[in-house]
Amino acid sequence: MTNCNLSMRSVSRHKPTQLVADQDALMRIFIRPESDAARLTLLKYMEQILFGLHEFLTRHVGVTQAKISLDSLKELSERFTSSTIGKHPEKMLADVITDLIEDIAPHAVNVASPYFVGHMTSALPFFMIHLKTIVAALNQNVIKLETSKVVSVIEKQVLAKIHRLIFQENEAFYQEHVQNPQTSLGCFIEDGTLANITALWVARNSLLTVRDRFEGIEKEGLSAAYKAHGIERLVVLVSRLGHYSLKKAGGVLGIGNQNVIAVEVDAKNRIDMNCLRQKIAELHDSSEKTRIMAIVGIAGTTETGSVDPLDQLAAICAEYRIHFHVDAAWGGPTLMSEKYRHLLAGIEQADSVTIDGHKQFYMPMTCGMVYFKDPRILDAIEYHAGYVNRPGSVDLGRKSLSGSREASSLILDSTLKIMGTQGYALLIEHGIEIARQFAAEIQGRPLFEMITQPELNILTYRLFPPANISLGGFRLEQGTPEESFNTSHQLNAITRKIQQLQREAGKSFVSRTTLRVHQYPGQDTVVFRCVIMNPMTTIGVLREILDEQEEIYSQIITGQVDL
Amino acid sequence: MTNCNLSMRSVSRHKPTQLVADQDALMRIFIRPESDAARLTLLKYMEQILFGLHEFLTRHVGVTQAKISLDSLKELSERFTSSTIGKHPEKMLADVITDLIEDIAPHAVNVASPYFVGHMTSALPFFMIHLKTIVAALNQNVIKLETSKVVSVIEKQVLAKIHRLIFQENEAFYQEHVQNPQTSLGCFIEDGTLANITALWVARNSLLTVRDRFEGIEKEGLSAAYKAHGIERLVVLVSRLGHYSLKKAGGVLGIGNQNVIAVEVDAKNRIDMNCLRQKIAELHDSSEKTRIMAIVGIAGTTETGSVDPLDQLAAICAEYRIHFHVDAAWGGPTLMSEKYRHLLAGIEQADSVTIDGHKQFYMPMTCGMVYFKDPRILDAIEYHAGYVNRPGSVDLGRKSLSGSREASSLILDSTLKIMGTQGYALLIEHGIEIARQFAAEIQGRPLFEMITQPELNILTYRLFPPANISLGGFRLEQGTPEESFNTSHQLNAITRKIQQLQREAGKSFVSRTTLRVHQYPGQDTVVFRCVIMNPMTTIGVLREILDEQEEIYSQIITGQVDL
Repeated sequence: MTNCNLSMRSVSRHKPTQLVADQDALMRIFIRPESDAARLTLLKYMEQILFGLHEFLTRHVGVTQAKISLDSLKELSERFTSSTIGKHPEKMLADVITDLIEDIAPHAVNVASPYFVGHMTSALPFFMIHLKTIVAALNQNVIKLETSKVVSVIEKQVLAKIHRLIFQENEAFYQEHVQNPQTSLGCFIEDGTLANITALWVARNSLLTVRDRFEGIEKEGLSAAYKAHGIERLVVLVSRLGHYSLKKAGGVLGIGNQNVIAVEVDAKNRIDMNCLRQKIAELHDSSEKTRIMAIVGIAGTTETGSVDPLDQLAAICAEYRIHFHVDAAWGGPTLMSEKYRHLLAGIEQADSVTIDGHKQFYMPMTCGMVYFKDPRILDAIEYHAGYVNRPGSVDLGRKSLSGSREASSLILDSTLKIMGTQGYALLIEHGIEIARQFAAEIQGRPLFEMITQPELNILTYRLFPPANISLGGFRLEQGTPEESFNTSHQLNAITRKIQQLQREAGKSFVSRTTLRVHQYPGQDTVVFRCVIMNPMTTIGVLREILDEQEEIYSQIITGQVDL
Repeated sequence: MTNCNLSMRSVSRHKPTQLVADQDALMRIFIRPESDAARLTLLKYMEQILFGLHEFLTRHVGVTQAKISLDSLKELSERFTSSTIGKHPEKMLADVITDLIEDIAPHAVNVASPYFVGHMTSALPFFMIHLKTIVAALNQNVIKLETSKVVSVIEKQVLAKIHRLIFQENEAFYQEHVQNPQTSLGCFIEDGTLANITALWVARNSLLTVRDRFEGIEKEGLSAAYKAHGIERLVVLVSRLGHYSLKKAGGVLGIGNQNVIAVEVDAKNRIDMNCLRQKIAELHDSSEKTRIMAIVGIAGTTETGSVDPLDQLAAICAEYRIHFHVDAAWGGPTLMSEKYRHLLAGIEQADSVTIDGHKQFYMPMTCGMVYFKDPRILDAIEYHAGYVNRPGSVDLGRKSLSGSREASSLILDSTLKIMGTQGYALLIEHGIEIARQFAAEIQGRPLFEMITQPELNILTYRLFPPANISLGGFRLEQGTPEESFNTSHQLNAITRKIQQLQREAGKSFVSRTTLRVHQYPGQDTVVFRCVIMNPMTTIGVLREILDEQEEIYSQIITGQVDL
């Protein structure tokens, strides 16, 4: 031990209650709270969090659910401008935690509120916090067996369970692979973005493989690979509603994000198969030596929740021998519902599939996953080191974009036991069915217009008041193209404004995005976007949200609020 | 709500106690435990974890610390071969958690044991579990302000604090950037591997930038970038002790992992500056159009803990205008110690720096970070989307390799307040000073040979018995090259065996790796690798570890155990 004459208790020296750190205090922080009073404070909060999560969040998080105006943000920012770390402890542990809960949490966003329907983050079952706490306490690192042991084994099992949910191979297949250290059915990674990057990394390497004296793209690089394979350009095709992480993957992997090509969608916001076929034909005919590295199908687009015709995409990929990736980050758990799993028909023919645990598996932030049909395809990205991940080892870190990893698999494995497929099916079915009821409600109100119908549990709509209403000097008319443009412009402005005012009022939160939709060709259409995953979000809650939007609208047209 | 006639309680139907799920149960799992008995069970465990972490781990995790023989692994694997998810809940929540703690945890690895000195994972201060629990309960997603609000603001502040610890810019600099939505001092990501990939991604894009009609590598891809910039090959230079994630970065980013070139090290396992200069000259002279994309300095190599001469590397990077990345995943927090921060002198001149929170910041798995000297360099990897990360927004997800992210920054920010730099300094100094004492102890024992001296808190050694001891038919002699080779071979075998037997005995865990060291040129040297970061690892504990290795050795030479 080093010598040190400081102490982490309060001592009076320069200031009346300066906190300092010494070896005793240091040992204690590894073991237990500073005092009985501190212990009691912590116990009080931890019990609230662990056994009254719902009330805890209602009471402590956000006076309102999502009050974010630029003014309040500026005020908040001004409170956090210190860039120095104190030499001595600034605060006792119990005070830091008290501040966190009493002072910081109220400025966080209550994503668990039933009125928070704007993003893919929602309430969690309370036991998720227990599981996360246990995982943190065990502090296993799943990169290698020596720091995870049983967790590596459990991870392989839960990968097999979700693989089977997707790909439905037979029992013999899973018996061969579930605990086979030489094969991998998938891997866990921080989030869906990195899962998509992993899938396309594998697709790239599987395509530009060893040939004659060329030792593979991973070793020699993209430029050498293009030469060896006689190509000049790799492309990825995905509907224009594809997640932006796919473009990011194109950039990171060196193929260029302009080569992640957006294909037009049909009236239901699914990839237009004619456009896709035409695009493939164009690429084949072009004088450039272009190869299609992957086609991506989306099972639940981020903005509209629509699902591409996965079976048709699978057929086209098989025809042209193209890697078929499905981004099911959002929609994957729909497979749990016997009633709705048909919506994802064809996913079992994918080469790779992304699913996010922190979305519709209702896990805490964050848990990305990517699954592969072929248990050996991950060999294309295998790395070794002298002290870990040695060839032939059972270390899971050998085949992964990341290194050190938290044992999220332990949470998912436990949750599947607690919920069963039926438990998840109830959640999924609730979301889909409430979304349909909500769509009917919107269509029944003259002030609104449905923009995209819910296929899963996401829908978009906008404000569209009766004709000839005067708004900020413009009249809403849709005769000539010019009138139509002006109207669209006005409607966008008013929808944008209502979303902002509702967010700032802080009771409810719907998000907004800008879509190009079939019914308004050539126009940017600003919409309210609604994601229904919280089982406490009832149709009553959603009616209140519409009521509030109508109220804000009437304040705008009566001039109480500026547009 | 959908109709459903199932119930998540026990009902007697086909089996005496079949568990089924219904809407009531579903709502309840979001809110509270099934019963008072379940609540009591959970409370008991959670209190143990939160307020008696040390005892909890000692009692529940691993009868032994790291008992992993291939036999036991095989047995364990055979228990986890189910690949189906039950339709109905398999178990009540309290039973799942009881199993996790009573049945699963004993097969996890007690990384918190003072005798677990083999990897960069160790005991955590108990309050880390409280902080992780709070972060999980809040479930903020730092990708965007709308799902994180105050956390985005706190994250920017803590990024500024660590940036200042590294780069030591002046107060005006931090006042300008700490809450500036248009600039970024760094970002959080899952782990050090992804942090290194991010840094090299930024370096690649900053080099192959817009030129004439070329719109930048991120958009057009590597092949077009090479053409536009008139080059044929990008390389990264790093000592051969560089982490394997750097090679992975070369592969992922498309430059090819063979172009991450290993430079020889000196007698102290630091990059050999003469070799580096020679390599740079060679690359400049070669007929190939080669550009050096980055030089990486290591602040704490994974295997030996050595620190490259960062100031000299900075000078050479400045001279040749090359991106200077420092991989301080391990050694970064040494900057907290006034006594030892000089070991990292030069790090303030880096263009980018990787640090892992789950290593020497003693945070739970996982928390990678990457920092950039230039607050605008991350613009090179900016991405937008319609519903989030819009241009000009304050969303942190605009400039990041990942998407959804847990609020790890909240844990680090709180911890800095609780610990102060002095708290961390004590931990860092303990590690370095105990490592030195341990080295002296090893050198005082005739049976061992130091292989690499500790510069930070990592050292390696091996078994090297007195001359002329007979081992498995060979005699240890080092006269001719052939004898020397045979001896080395034998020593490797015996060190490997002792490490394995000690690991399997389960009381202690040192890791092993294979090094090429200065004193044995051309020979692979298998070594024990010891990482001292747990403040409860005293010199007494380390002496016991050596005693046990000596005991195993004597069992081997007396033939009680086969080599």
